[in-house]
Amino acid sequence: MQASQPSHPIGVFDSGVGGLTVVRALMDRLPFENIIYFGDTARVPYGVKSVATIEHFTQQIADFLLKQQVKMLIIACNTMAAVAADKVRAASPVPVLDVIEAGAKHATSVTRSGGIGVIGTPATINSNAYARAIHQLDPSFRVYSQACPLFVPLVEEGWLDHPVTRLTAQEYLKPVFVESIDTLVLGCTHYPLIKPLLLDVVGNRMQLVDSALSIADQTAELLKKQGLSNPAHSVPDYRYYVTDLPVRFQAVGERFLGRSLNHLERVSL
Amino acid sequence: MQASQPSHPIGVFDSGVGGLTVVRALMDRLPFENIIYFGDTARVPYGVKSVATIEHFTQQIADFLLKQQVKMLIIACNTMAAVAADKVRAASPVPVLDVIEAGAKHATSVTRSGGIGVIGTPATINSNAYARAIHQLDPSFRVYSQACPLFVPLVEEGWLDHPVTRLTAQEYLKPVFVESIDTLVLGCTHYPLIKPLLLDVVGNRMQLVDSALSIADQTAELLKKQGLSNPAHSVPDYRYYVTDLPVRFQAVGERFLGRSLNHLERVSL
Repeated sequence: MQASQPSHPIGVFDSGVGGLTVVRALMDRLPFENIIYFGDTARVPYGVKSVATIEHFTQQIADFLLKQQVKMLIIACNTMAAVAADKVRAASPVPVLDVIEAGAKHATSVTRSGGIGVIGTPATINSNAYARAIHQLDPSFRVYSQACPLFVPLVEEGWLDHPVTRLTAQEYLKPVFVESIDTLVLGCTHYPLIKPLLLDVVGNRMQLVDSALSIADQTAELLKKQGLSNPAHSVPDYRYYVTDLPVRFQAVGERFLGRSLNHLERVSL
Repeated sequence: MQASQPSHPIGVFDSGVGGLTVVRALMDRLPFENIIYFGDTARVPYGVKSVATIEHFTQQIADFLLKQQVKMLIIACNTMAAVAADKVRAASPVPVLDVIEAGAKHATSVTRSGGIGVIGTPATINSNAYARAIHQLDPSFRVYSQACPLFVPLVEEGWLDHPVTRLTAQEYLKPVFVESIDTLVLGCTHYPLIKPLLLDVVGNRMQLVDSALSIADQTAELLKKQGLSNPAHSVPDYRYYVTDLPVRFQAVGERFLGRSLNHLERVSL
């Protein structure tokens, strides 16, 4: 396996379609970088699976992308980052960033009160990975975590501004509001799509941290620091690999990506 | 592969935990039958996957159960029944029943107006399998289908009698109410858990058909007709196989089963 080359693509992966919010942020922040995306759509969602199964699936995907000669890996799935980031890092010859580390860093840099809320899937919240990442940066911060299992299906249903989604958000955030929290991390790549609704529900109680934007910033920083920015200033190459037939991925994916989605291919692991 | 023997167990399978509502109905209806249940929890849910992938996974599970010498197969997952029942039947040396056929038969026997509504996952509804099954019995019946993708996550969240579930049901059933329908098929094994709430939302507009109860009745009939009823009147043996670690299956499964869940084992396909 050869070392990272500046002209090589960035590898981004997720259990399904959610990581495309990270791809979208990368496209906006780093418009000359080539990107390969991998979504494990035949086995999505990971959020309710066991640690052993998630670790196994995650390593399979990382290996696939490394064979495509990516210059870095981005774990765009909070569940995989929570459960398997350490193993991927230990086995990877190229730099690895993950959404949890990115969201934690961003949250600690903007909180004033030191009270940080995190919302995510049950697997992400149960792993306690955000609290660990935040406390590694500063053990004095208080972290309050809340699982929101219905947000992913609500986003995939397209109910981005629907009374049911609003009522669900009010229900999930009720216990968050009574804590002294000024910063809320969107700990799932699906949540940026309901950011307007969430902003409305939280009002001026707290600011939201969108991990997709955080990781795009950190990617820019890493590429610059390691001399890995793509020197070519031409139209970049975007490729998408999925494990199930790509029809639904394409339809839902374009909503996540905010633009059309080409060069989509199905592969087996 | 040897033929069906009366003392052999009934094989029931589903993509996850939902088929346990069928097991529960079988336990009540046929208290002396041994049952083997298979839930593909590492790859659940099937409802959003492609036809090719669902067919492949379904056949793997049927083969596993046939190796356990089941005397009949029950496809307790509407998505698998919709997409892969014909293939399983063609390859099976033992009788095969499925929830769609069972629900369709029951609905056609109780409707008075001939207007039948069906609610289910997107894959079940998109397959149009209920309409086909109903029209094979009587082409004069009118079928109106409605996908309800949020019901499964709402049931798994445990919001069985929650304002969000009520609002979601009202939203999904709005188009059903304006059709001339007197019978509504619960075309997903998760839905029996919200039957009280659904009964409340539909009021006296229509009666509900619970496929779990329908298939238990048809199983009793088939066993009797083919001389396959278990002659032993002792405490039966119940075994459960899953593909992911069984912790979550056990917790959620006991809610579906309405009793404790033992003899649970993880296997690989």
